[in-house]
Amino acid sequence: MNFPLGYRYSTVYAGIRKTEKDDLALIVSDTPASAAAVFTRNVVQAAPVRLGRAHLSASRGKARAILINAGNANCATRTGDKVALATCEAVAKRGQYPANQVIPSSTGVIGVELNPKLIVSALPKLFAGLAPDRFADVARAIMTTDLVPKAASGEIPLKGGTVRIAGMAKGSGMIHPNMATTLGFVMMDAKIAPVHLKPMLASAINRSFNRLTVDGDTSTNDTVLVLANGASGVTPNEKERQVITEVLSWVLEDLAEKIARDGEGATKCITIHVTGARSAEDADKIGRAIANSPLVKTAVFGNDPNWGRILCAAGYSGGYFDPNKVEIKLQGVTVCRNGLAVDFDEAAMKKQMDKPDVAIRFNIGGSGKVETQFWTCDFTEGYIRINASYRT
Amino acid sequence: MNFPLGYRYSTVYAGIRKTEKDDLALIVSDTPASAAAVFTRNVVQAAPVRLGRAHLSASRGKARAILINAGNANCATRTGDKVALATCEAVAKRGQYPANQVIPSSTGVIGVELNPKLIVSALPKLFAGLAPDRFADVARAIMTTDLVPKAASGEIPLKGGTVRIAGMAKGSGMIHPNMATTLGFVMMDAKIAPVHLKPMLASAINRSFNRLTVDGDTSTNDTVLVLANGASGVTPNEKERQVITEVLSWVLEDLAEKIARDGEGATKCITIHVTGARSAEDADKIGRAIANSPLVKTAVFGNDPNWGRILCAAGYSGGYFDPNKVEIKLQGVTVCRNGLAVDFDEAAMKKQMDKPDVAIRFNIGGSGKVETQFWTCDFTEGYIRINASYRT
Repeated sequence: MNFPLGYRYSTVYAGIRKTEKDDLALIVSDTPASAAAVFTRNVVQAAPVRLGRAHLSASRGKARAILINAGNANCATRTGDKVALATCEAVAKRGQYPANQVIPSSTGVIGVELNPKLIVSALPKLFAGLAPDRFADVARAIMTTDLVPKAASGEIPLKGGTVRIAGMAKGSGMIHPNMATTLGFVMMDAKIAPVHLKPMLASAINRSFNRLTVDGDTSTNDTVLVLANGASGVTPNEKERQVITEVLSWVLEDLAEKIARDGEGATKCITIHVTGARSAEDADKIGRAIANSPLVKTAVFGNDPNWGRILCAAGYSGGYFDPNKVEIKLQGVTVCRNGLAVDFDEAAMKKQMDKPDVAIRFNIGGSGKVETQFWTCDFTEGYIRINASYRT
Repeated sequence: MNFPLGYRYSTVYAGIRKTEKDDLALIVSDTPASAAAVFTRNVVQAAPVRLGRAHLSASRGKARAILINAGNANCATRTGDKVALATCEAVAKRGQYPANQVIPSSTGVIGVELNPKLIVSALPKLFAGLAPDRFADVARAIMTTDLVPKAASGEIPLKGGTVRIAGMAKGSGMIHPNMATTLGFVMMDAKIAPVHLKPMLASAINRSFNRLTVDGDTSTNDTVLVLANGASGVTPNEKERQVITEVLSWVLEDLAEKIARDGEGATKCITIHVTGARSAEDADKIGRAIANSPLVKTAVFGNDPNWGRILCAAGYSGGYFDPNKVEIKLQGVTVCRNGLAVDFDEAAMKKQMDKPDVAIRFNIGGSGKVETQFWTCDFTEGYIRINASYRT
């Protein structure tokens, strides 16, 4: 992985989570970077989400540092806003940045006061640890119930030189379109104005994180933040920005798939392709309903080619299709044509489904040309175990 | 339980399900009864749903018999429509009813051909077994993954005499507002014209089954059918019909609660009250999001008073509320006020939650006066086990 130039990373254990595992992370750009973010659409928004939005607005889309903690969502608490502000200001003071160029981000339990002293007193060690090669440490420190850290990267050779993108994310429950709970942080070293960066992120998010679901819950803290600091010295033109958007989408898709694969308790990554839709809205509704259906997700867990549940989920999705024209494929094998059962070798199919990747294709079968893709995971006893005891 | 007059019931094992347990049931009214039904809104509709709707329309809301099978949904198969029609016609012939006064109903696996011979050849025994006191046998025969049969009843002393209502239902996965997968059959012996019966059922359903959710999935076979045969000799006036609607609602609420309690793998029945909403739409969206949230449902399973998940679910529901005014009560104890944590005795609360009934109150805290109620169950490892191996 060739990391984007001009960024440094650090992590420490600040005592926010109970187990001694780094829970505080800092990402710093050596120069003010253009910044764009997508935040949760939940009505209940955590303090760092509110402050991050305000800071990006006040700084006109510039950021020097991202301060991230795991173990506490800093949401629905008496002191949340003050804590978010005080910790950002402490980072700004120590780094000599404008306070509004520090973006806070939190993940963890809701409704428990976050002690700002834990963070402030950890800052000397956090700053002292900053290094260009500690990207992976941050990816690990932001994990909650994630089992593996998630990173993806790309390099784009442009006329003016090479541009690098590297992203990290955390899942792993409460992942849902509009948007994933995930925290995601993407660094690039191209020089891109904030006014251009924003639509690039929006487009990439729509093709990636907004098509990812683990359990249908949307959290209060969802944030995906992208920085572009220009350290490569390359200023892409409009056409080249489109190429960068493609690679950014690819990086975010890769992260989305990794989040699905590491969904709480998941044993499989399920990819749902919907084809032949009349509109993007129809395709989205159908794909999302299939991806969210506990019955589909438990059937996949049990290696059960129960396509009736897929048809049924599409049926209540609200997306248009003609049930008499539907074709459903599981792992490439047609199991339903024109809405009716197709004979298939059940034993062979069970074997096909007993793999870490399961592909569901739902072809609407009309004359529509729109298609889409969703990612989710299977629904297992492990999910229940994790979530029945998250706080204990 | 005093059963409505003029009905007879029977069940047999016809060999539709693999295990030898009655899977075919018949409910007969001695005279043509007024009939009203609510069917699934899923785009994919099982053959018996389509035929039942057609029959009720052709008979102008009259029915003599309901033919129900478990073990096969008769949905998404090549021969489904023919099978539904042939079996209804066989019942009509044997009972000497008009064919369109026989309503079919099926529940079970989707996409597997249903052999009509199994049903037709079981009819002699099925008819021979008809008796006024076999209501409970039918309630048992229509069960799929249900653990207990579900019945509820009421008696209404009116001026002209007593009127009786008795209902039965089956769950237990794929239960969702609009509407529950449930099959539900309600018999009354009041004399009520079809034109009056329809709005009575619609009103009662809206207050009961449409507020019930187990896993958010809506099936292809959902049917609630109510018959009123006039065998009591009592013809209620408009005011009395309102009273009957109340009791009908109560019977359906009772069945809905029983379905929630017996949800697949459920250990608890969760009742969600939403109060203080500006509109019924807001209240419904909030209540439904809380009831459907896997994170809320797993927290309840784990006796975890994790009200942050409740607030979060309301937040993404799309229903209006001010997060700074919300009050949340768990088992009567305030855990969140003005959107913030309230101190409570965690150990005592865990004990309170370790009960078969868990009450969540979500007070929007504004000046709104609208309230609503939803029923659901906790989300457990048992649900996963059941649904990962349904067909095997």
